[in-house]
Amino acid sequence: MNNLNKTPHRRFNILTGEWILVSPHRTKRPWQGKTEKTLAENPKQFDAECYLCPGNTRNSGEQNPDYKEPYSFINDFPSLLADTPEESFQNGLLKAETESGICKVVCFSPDHSLTLPVMEVEEIGKVVKLWKQEFAELGGAPNINYVQIFENKGDMMGCSNPHPHGQIWSQRSIPTEIQKKSKHFREYWKERKRSLLEDYLEQELELDERILEKNDHFVALIPYWAVWPYEAMILPRKHYSHIGLLNEEEELAFAELIKKLTTRYDNLFETSFPYSSGIHQQPTDGKDYPEWHFHMSFYPPLLRSATIKKFMVGYEMFAGPQRDITAEQAAENLKSLHEIHYSKR
Amino acid sequence: MNNLNKTPHRRFNILTGEWILVSPHRTKRPWQGKTEKTLAENPKQFDAECYLCPGNTRNSGEQNPDYKEPYSFINDFPSLLADTPEESFQNGLLKAETESGICKVVCFSPDHSLTLPVMEVEEIGKVVKLWKQEFAELGGAPNINYVQIFENKGDMMGCSNPHPHGQIWSQRSIPTEIQKKSKHFREYWKERKRSLLEDYLEQELELDERILEKNDHFVALIPYWAVWPYEAMILPRKHYSHIGLLNEEEELAFAELIKKLTTRYDNLFETSFPYSSGIHQQPTDGKDYPEWHFHMSFYPPLLRSATIKKFMVGYEMFAGPQRDITAEQAAENLKSLHEIHYSKR
Ligand SMILES: O=P(O)(O)O[C@H]1O[C@H](CO)[C@@H](O)[C@H](O)[C@H]1O
Ligand SMILES: O=P(O)(O)O[C@H]1O[C@H](CO)[C@@H](O)[C@H](O)[C@H]1O
Repeated sequence: MNNLNKTPHRRFNILTGEWILVSPHRTKRPWQGKTEKTLAENPKQFDAECYLCPGNTRNSGEQNPDYKEPYSFINDFPSLLADTPEESFQNGLLKAETESGICKVVCFSPDHSLTLPVMEVEEIGKVVKLWKQEFAELGGAPNINYVQIFENKGDMMGCSNPHPHGQIWSQRSIPTEIQKKSKHFREYWKERKRSLLEDYLEQELELDERILEKNDHFVALIPYWAVWPYEAMILPRKHYSHIGLLNEEEELAFAELIKKLTTRYDNLFETSFPYSSGIHQQPTDGKDYPEWHFHMSFYPPLLRSATIKKFMVGYEMFAGPQRDITAEQAAENLKSLHEIHYSKR
Repeated sequence: MNNLNKTPHRRFNILTGEWILVSPHRTKRPWQGKTEKTLAENPKQFDAECYLCPGNTRNSGEQNPDYKEPYSFINDFPSLLADTPEESFQNGLLKAETESGICKVVCFSPDHSLTLPVMEVEEIGKVVKLWKQEFAELGGAPNINYVQIFENKGDMMGCSNPHPHGQIWSQRSIPTEIQKKSKHFREYWKERKRSLLEDYLEQELELDERILEKNDHFVALIPYWAVWPYEAMILPRKHYSHIGLLNEEEELAFAELIKKLTTRYDNLFETSFPYSSGIHQQPTDGKDYPEWHFHMSFYPPLLRSATIKKFMVGYEMFAGPQRDITAEQAAENLKSLHEIHYSKR
């Protein structure tokens, strides 16, 4: 086999069944295109203008409580509404159906100046606990068959407020990305009665080429089929289909790897690293999903510096994803960094 | 049925089999997030620093000829190489294969200051002719089974040079997006011996709600399942599986709609409208594709103004695409505009 670190190739994503094009010979391409502003650091612990800070009044007129712990509320501009009646529509080749759901905002901390990498593990543990609680409550609500927990971090990722927060969109139908992964988990399970990701993790731990961090309960790694330059995944060693199954010790172990991974991210270009992250887990439609293995993925756009990002545009939109540095090079770059956050050294 | 212009719903994409979430009630959401710089207009017809202008020397050391017509050459930093030997690799759950291909750059005009909407129809017709020629040559080359023609326009779309140009990436394997569409074209064809897009077009022409432009040979419309705020599609009325089938009159008719659509785009926010566009057509692997119907799609990111774009981030990456304004509202906005380019009025 040619050296995959030098040869253009495609890799197969075992979870989605899709391929990704890798062009490792192309990393020396000069860049004359768009650069991004680096974000000013965000020193205020309380911002009177921020609609997420404790005690402030939001756009909707509602006032935030003086919260001290992670705090969630229904999105003031939700993309889904709980009371939309179920209806479907077909006219020849035009096909639509109404959708209902509940959208929430999750403030990670009352402190406006923080981000996950600079929060304490115990504080992040409380965010994990709130995610669990929301997953149980929303997932148990009528007509909520999937709960998508995610964070858009940084204005490059469409985040309109630097206050540390994420979102949860939960809905009646099961989204495309979940259906793709369900299919591949299920096929593997049927054949071997094993979790696809458990077997994958075993192989990664043995090869030890793409592992970034690990503790007793979780592992952070660059998946073999990563799309974004520094895409990473945190997954539990145990075959858990959703976060509701974590005990207190595991919650903290999860929190620890979130902190460690995002710290490496910030240290890479000494900037508050933008990304979208999300937790993929089993649907909440009441069916059994013994095949599912939950995981949290991070899709960060930065490629070469705090101001140069990877654009997923023409070829990527029309053909399929493409990357330049390999997953192994990305892992090496991240592993070589200091473990302490650059702002605290 | 609830009014789809007011109710959260999902629409089905007949070409990919995937759903898109539409949240029309959400358009009044305030925006405090990232805004983009508006691009300075680009007045020079020749730029001595531009590696695409006629006569200039490129990064590779090669000198561009003094071209007067659309001009193409092999990308100096190609993501694919023609001579990569075919090999595949599997180790447990890690699966990869080498990929080979040819990547080209297509300069639309020698004039550095132009863009498609401000070029003459005859000039755009020459670009279409060059695309046809490249499709035939590349598609006929050994081991080239798919030819992706695309343009990234504007630095917001990762374009690193304002000189009017597009790209062509052609490769051995058939990309994911093409495979998805092939499947749906094929299924429809098997069942009815009709082109899925021909039938769709007929229905759209009759409804006349999402049609933007038409002439004797082509129609430009907002597809029912559009993802990007002002996503549009240009398709031939005749059931052609690839652009090689166009005669001279049809080439010009295609060019005319490209000009008209991109002019509406520029007029919407009186800015040079960024987008990625691409032509989807049948693979070039020597097999028959009677079911394919070629089409050109435009994915522009701007949402509300020249500086506010739609971000496809957390929810969109982890669950599936989401939009706020409906396809019908987008069509209405575009149809209400002046037909003459704002810079020429
Ligand atoms: O080839 P270019 O113009 O340098 O690069 C641009 O288009 C490519 C194809 O869509 C993308 O992979 C790059 O991320 C983008 O910046
Ligand atoms: O809900 P927000 O933070 O206003 O909006 C952000 O996240 C949403 C969910 O990924 C996206 O649809 C928006 O485009 C993005 O700007």
